[in-house]
Amino acid sequence: MPHIALNSAEPGIRGLMRYRPETARPLSELTEVLLRGPGPLARGERELIAAYVSALNDCRYCSSSHSACAAAQLPGGMALVEQVRADPGSAPVSAKLKALLAIASAVRRSGHAVTAGHVAEARAAGATDVEIHDTILIAAVFCMFNRYVDGLATTAPDDPALYAAGAQRLLMHGYLAPSADPGSQG
Amino acid sequence: MPHIALNSAEPGIRGLMRYRPETARPLSELTEVLLRGPGPLARGERELIAAYVSALNDCRYCSSSHSACAAAQLPGGMALVEQVRADPGSAPVSAKLKALLAIASAVRRSGHAVTAGHVAEARAAGATDVEIHDTILIAAVFCMFNRYVDGLATTAPDDPALYAAGAQRLLMHGYLAPSADPGSQG
Repeated sequence: MPHIALNSAEPGIRGLMRYRPETARPLSELTEVLLRGPGPLARGERELIAAYVSALNDCRYCSSSHSACAAAQLPGGMALVEQVRADPGSAPVSAKLKALLAIASAVRRSGHAVTAGHVAEARAAGATDVEIHDTILIAAVFCMFNRYVDGLATTAPDDPALYAAGAQRLLMHGYLAPSADPGSQG
Repeated sequence: MPHIALNSAEPGIRGLMRYRPETARPLSELTEVLLRGPGPLARGERELIAAYVSALNDCRYCSSSHSACAAAQLPGGMALVEQVRADPGSAPVSAKLKALLAIASAVRRSGHAVTAGHVAEARAAGATDVEIHDTILIAAVFCMFNRYVDGLATTAPDDPALYAAGAQRLLMHGYLAPSADPGSQG
């Protein structure tokens, strides 16, 4: 049960966005720009970074939602997402993406945990400065969303089909559509 | 030295916002709404929560900037901010603010670290649901900014006068003005 009385039964970030529309608007815009706007990383890769960080933070709503969004946009589907979540080092993804996931994992611990070595490794694997920047910001943003969603003890549906349906709506409508958030039961 | 080649010598979040204006816009709007928009917590209290979380995360740029902004808007000034940063439990702030700072500290560790006990204590001290919500979101947002700023190894000026001047610009122009970010040397 959420720590505060929300004004809807919507799960996860959805209920929080309905509760406080003033902050929901820039949060939605940030998510849309960062995960779907112009940028060098594929949308599926960005969702994968979001899912990976959210899983490390043990945020069930965000990790389920963004795993479904990543699976819907990556050729490897949910099997690949699950491999990355279990062990990115041995997952069948590029050396560049492995190095970016290692940076994301460091960001999750602390900004100070990102070393020149992490960055050099990503660059050696072909990552550009903007890719490194966007990876760090995506990881940081999900450290925010995970804390927001779990700090208020919001609910998360169990049924994977709900997250998969949310991902399909997301693909069609993006993060700015009022009812497009993944995991929605509405 | 920053981990990537920025397009300015501006410190902290300023340099990152200039580098990636697409994400800067919603980040600035979020900060403006959350720290200065309509809400039950005083602006100085909101900046104090931001400064406290940033200090716990050892983010020099953010903690210096938001300490200056809190000091400029709280009757106790910088002496009070320093007392809160050193030990909120013994600082001369209300029981309600102490309970909210305890929630912010829990959010910093993990969303899951916020307990029903934390929330009950804040409520017993007079906190409303919106105050609890806003505290959790402010703490979560600064867990993002701190990771973004330090994950990219941005620079932070040493001179407290620069942060104090930034706070004065902030008070006049808000977070949406292009050059209003605290700590600016420009």
